[in-house]
Amino acid sequence: MRETDNKAVNAIRILSADMIQKAVSGHPGLPLGAAPAAFELWARHMLHNPSDPLWPNRDRFILSGGHGSAMLYSLLHLFGYGLTVEDLKGFRQAGSLTPGHPEYGHTVGVEATTGPLGAGMGMSVGMAIAEAHLAAVFNKPGFPVFDHYVFALGGDGCMMEGISSEAFSLAGTLGLSKLIIIYDSNRISIEGSTDIAFTEDVMKRMEAFGFQTIDVPDGNDLAAIGAAIEEAKADTMRPSFIRIHTVIGYGCPDKQGRAVAHGEPLGEENIAAMRDFLGWESKEAFYVPEEVYTYVRGFTVRGSGAEEKWQEMMEKYFETYPAMRELWDEFFTKDRTRELLEDTALWSVDDKPVASRASSGTMIARMADRIPSLIGGSADLAPSNKTYMKDKGDFSRENYLGRNLHFGVRELAMGAIGNGMALSGLRPYLGTFFVFSDYLKPMIRLAAIMKLPVTYVMTHDSIGVGEDGPTHQPIEQLAAMRAMPGIDVIRPADAAETAAAWYLAATSNDHPVMLVLTRQNLPRVCSDGKKALKGAYIVADSSKVVPDAIIIATGSEVAPSLEARRLLRQRGIDARVVSMPCTQIFDAQDAEYREHVLPSEVRARVAVEALSTFGWEKYVGLDGAVVGMTGFGASAPAGTLFEKYGFTAEHIARTVEDIM
Amino acid sequence: MRETDNKAVNAIRILSADMIQKAVSGHPGLPLGAAPAAFELWARHMLHNPSDPLWPNRDRFILSGGHGSAMLYSLLHLFGYGLTVEDLKGFRQAGSLTPGHPEYGHTVGVEATTGPLGAGMGMSVGMAIAEAHLAAVFNKPGFPVFDHYVFALGGDGCMMEGISSEAFSLAGTLGLSKLIIIYDSNRISIEGSTDIAFTEDVMKRMEAFGFQTIDVPDGNDLAAIGAAIEEAKADTMRPSFIRIHTVIGYGCPDKQGRAVAHGEPLGEENIAAMRDFLGWESKEAFYVPEEVYTYVRGFTVRGSGAEEKWQEMMEKYFETYPAMRELWDEFFTKDRTRELLEDTALWSVDDKPVASRASSGTMIARMADRIPSLIGGSADLAPSNKTYMKDKGDFSRENYLGRNLHFGVRELAMGAIGNGMALSGLRPYLGTFFVFSDYLKPMIRLAAIMKLPVTYVMTHDSIGVGEDGPTHQPIEQLAAMRAMPGIDVIRPADAAETAAAWYLAATSNDHPVMLVLTRQNLPRVCSDGKKALKGAYIVADSSKVVPDAIIIATGSEVAPSLEARRLLRQRGIDARVVSMPCTQIFDAQDAEYREHVLPSEVRARVAVEALSTFGWEKYVGLDGAVVGMTGFGASAPAGTLFEKYGFTAEHIARTVEDIM
Repeated sequence: MRETDNKAVNAIRILSADMIQKAVSGHPGLPLGAAPAAFELWARHMLHNPSDPLWPNRDRFILSGGHGSAMLYSLLHLFGYGLTVEDLKGFRQAGSLTPGHPEYGHTVGVEATTGPLGAGMGMSVGMAIAEAHLAAVFNKPGFPVFDHYVFALGGDGCMMEGISSEAFSLAGTLGLSKLIIIYDSNRISIEGSTDIAFTEDVMKRMEAFGFQTIDVPDGNDLAAIGAAIEEAKADTMRPSFIRIHTVIGYGCPDKQGRAVAHGEPLGEENIAAMRDFLGWESKEAFYVPEEVYTYVRGFTVRGSGAEEKWQEMMEKYFETYPAMRELWDEFFTKDRTRELLEDTALWSVDDKPVASRASSGTMIARMADRIPSLIGGSADLAPSNKTYMKDKGDFSRENYLGRNLHFGVRELAMGAIGNGMALSGLRPYLGTFFVFSDYLKPMIRLAAIMKLPVTYVMTHDSIGVGEDGPTHQPIEQLAAMRAMPGIDVIRPADAAETAAAWYLAATSNDHPVMLVLTRQNLPRVCSDGKKALKGAYIVADSSKVVPDAIIIATGSEVAPSLEARRLLRQRGIDARVVSMPCTQIFDAQDAEYREHVLPSEVRARVAVEALSTFGWEKYVGLDGAVVGMTGFGASAPAGTLFEKYGFTAEHIARTVEDIM
Repeated sequence: MRETDNKAVNAIRILSADMIQKAVSGHPGLPLGAAPAAFELWARHMLHNPSDPLWPNRDRFILSGGHGSAMLYSLLHLFGYGLTVEDLKGFRQAGSLTPGHPEYGHTVGVEATTGPLGAGMGMSVGMAIAEAHLAAVFNKPGFPVFDHYVFALGGDGCMMEGISSEAFSLAGTLGLSKLIIIYDSNRISIEGSTDIAFTEDVMKRMEAFGFQTIDVPDGNDLAAIGAAIEEAKADTMRPSFIRIHTVIGYGCPDKQGRAVAHGEPLGEENIAAMRDFLGWESKEAFYVPEEVYTYVRGFTVRGSGAEEKWQEMMEKYFETYPAMRELWDEFFTKDRTRELLEDTALWSVDDKPVASRASSGTMIARMADRIPSLIGGSADLAPSNKTYMKDKGDFSRENYLGRNLHFGVRELAMGAIGNGMALSGLRPYLGTFFVFSDYLKPMIRLAAIMKLPVTYVMTHDSIGVGEDGPTHQPIEQLAAMRAMPGIDVIRPADAAETAAAWYLAATSNDHPVMLVLTRQNLPRVCSDGKKALKGAYIVADSSKVVPDAIIIATGSEVAPSLEARRLLRQRGIDARVVSMPCTQIFDAQDAEYREHVLPSEVRARVAVEALSTFGWEKYVGLDGAVVGMTGFGASAPAGTLFEKYGFTAEHIARTVEDIM
């Protein structure tokens, strides 16, 4: 290794150790072990430009082992992404640019929020899918608009998590050759040697998935690491998997190679010993010799030069293909809020009963024609989820232009892939049965944290699933999703509200949206879908200024609630019915509107929803009631179940009478 | 194939098709394709006794592809487990013994509730771990008390799900040679050929995990299937994986080999054609020739004879080793409710501040000495979760006697394995960070549906996680878990309440219990842990008969709430503080107790919990307030975050003042 290379690598180690020591919190194991691989990659093999971190065709780097954030911040600092020594000193402190795990949108140069192990692996597959798709859409002979690589670096934990098997199996099937995974194999996890839980032949598994596999026996050998990355790039048929044998906590004599190096500060004495061991010239914390900065920044010329050429190419490209300029804007910059709102054809629905999953299918078809960056699919349930876009092609190894994705029965990886696609500028939607949102959940959470506009098409939304029984009937899922910050969960009552739901999903730029849709037909109840844009609205009012009672319902329970209102009128109770497709959007309305829909003085309130009652007391209070589920469902035809569990007009009406 | 074998196999096909047709709902694809494998296994290779379905040493069969339930019900009917033709005719109807997916505890002979794909694979690994452990505990020279096999049958979907990779990687590491997986490889999934999403080399992956792999080219070849099973049994070092190439919907000429065979009735005409194709002698629905019943029941002699021998052996065993009788009872029959309640040493806690995860660790140690069937571990976070049982050994290929499991970073598989162990009579606990309960969730749900006494030890329970930041700080997880039926979620406020929490977990026989525990120290607030057994109790009362206000808090927020009460008293407000470690248990108390703790007339109520506010309105109503989280957390020291988000005595006190 060249002396300056060695110093640059050690600068990453020293800075990481110092950051963690100052914070008295953090994970030195990965940064110390993987520093050579990260440096070699960033310096000599990744095309990136610190002065334009959003260059569309930059190579992506995802630190799947997000606990190694100190390494990433050290890289961003040394390569000139704008992180200062002061920022590094604020590691893991309130308000700093260097939080405990890398946060997308918070720190320039961080491509994805990571931390939950394996998530970055799944997201990298999504980014590689996006690269392949965008290349298919935009590239022209002589104009490789998109031809970047996606690198993800993770460790043993990432490889143990099932998400990596799911995602890599699909990546192999799809032949995503721009995907290069770097496996920091230190064979140490928190409980000790990986021998206790992880003796599998990882390389063989990756070969089975269809990856090229490359072994690097010495994690400090920059030349071998570099050769491996180039070998990975050279395979244009398969994604590549580079295993680099590293030593956790390398450089810290007393801790290296041991689990204790993983997740706690090394200690001042150990860091001093590490400085000696590495021959570091200064004992001063956070000190990096100027020559290292100069040396490292020298490498960025490759990336900035590459971007310069790319920008020149793009000028010619847009001259040569003026229509592509428009398509580019359609993909990456267009705000459709107004246009879609006023698009009569988009909002048109008829009056015949239809399942909201089918209404959603209609909306997907309409959106697909209007939004070229819309891409999506299902975890092997497209015919049930109604997520297939006719005439938009199937994304496959042979056809990266296709916009219909087949994720296989892999919900968690689907979620991660959706995040990766959204991070690369596509507008993805993902379908499965609502009950299986449980499998997706960790990735939905990351989408919410990252504020990504991913749309979840969750069908079969209640005991209305019927015969498939309790394992397939969501109960607690709706409450669980509503409890999560940063997502709008919409359960439309009919085709008109479904149009509103898809409008909200398709125009979101800063949060995911989940659509919760029926398997069974729903009658038309909403006269104008745009009413639903406020989250809740009066669907049928009392004739009194102050209603005798208010029934709040969502989705399939709005129609029987309307019928209950009619029954109650016959019995002298003049109730209002509120349809509340989205509690979060309603909660965000001003106090006046909320008071208009739910006047404080009306305490006779009943909420109706064929899922868990949990959470509805927010709207019905201590004096109201909830008609909902308090246990799991059962296997029987849907109609039987709605009767059995009380989702009938008569039972709703009686519940209103009971609380009055 | 012998003619009668053929008829028996076809009886499974015909009954399955008829059940699904009558229900107008169900999945014929798997039953028709996998009938030969299932028949051969049940008839000639599995030791089971339909007249004693709970024989402890029976071979286990788990239908991981639970949608193929019609096949399982046909088997249970033909082999004499008590399901009648009438039961089969009630397939997927309300109240029948033949629900849409197999339900444990509902239908005799069903070993596990399945449906979510891959779950059965994970649970089978748990059962194989249980078998190995029980054998290590109970077997003596010449007395193989436990030596049964665990068979799981699933299809392409089960193999695509990440859980199977997680669980099989661990099974290979542990060398669970009694585990035999039968892969019904029909290469068709709902969206079409598996080529679109699943071209990996499954056999190679399984070899990489450390399995023996065996290929059966023709799924109708009983002899080859039988030979493969015997070959699997013969390997005493590795688990085995048998791939059987089948044709989905085999026997139905118009549908076989196509996705359309998977999940809908074949149709009357197609079933008629199928009867012709298979040479079935009757057109009558549900008709099976008497000779087939006689033939199939003949095979059960092997199992009943084996059990008879086993029972005789057990008599001698208990005579020879009288202490083992006691241990047997300790494992399988003992009710500890009273004994543990009155066990002073078990409940003893001191007054010094301690993190509830550490209190839990103390309780685990105490329980481990009292409950020999207690077995557990963590998804690679034992040092953080405090789940390690000192001196109880590590479960490994070399030591199946060990009671500490190392699951690796595989939360979902850990959940399934816990279910499998509980199904086999062990009392498992599973640890990870609370935020990663998201990964476990689908398996927790199955535990709740199956009413299994699994204990989840979820530590790092709020923004108190601190520096690790939003990806590691649970927010919505507590609401999500409370929304789920069939589980008690307990968030204790101190060591005394943690003792109660573990008491409740250790004595549950019909539901899972989740413990939600702090990373940070908690002062002692509860004078007697037994008060917590009612879910909520008055921890500090108002001196007034009717309190001016009520503060309801859980976990780490009880202490600042008590301090807030003192501040309020100084300001002339005389409030009560209620500690509510478990909302579900409190809700199950009688109305009188609930009214005693939360009198209806007191509407000035504030709930305090450093997680999502979602759901607390159930207790504070429309006039109260919730001090909680409405967004994701941040990376900073815990103390800073508690200040920042308002979990201070002063802010709680002000919130009470504001609503009064």
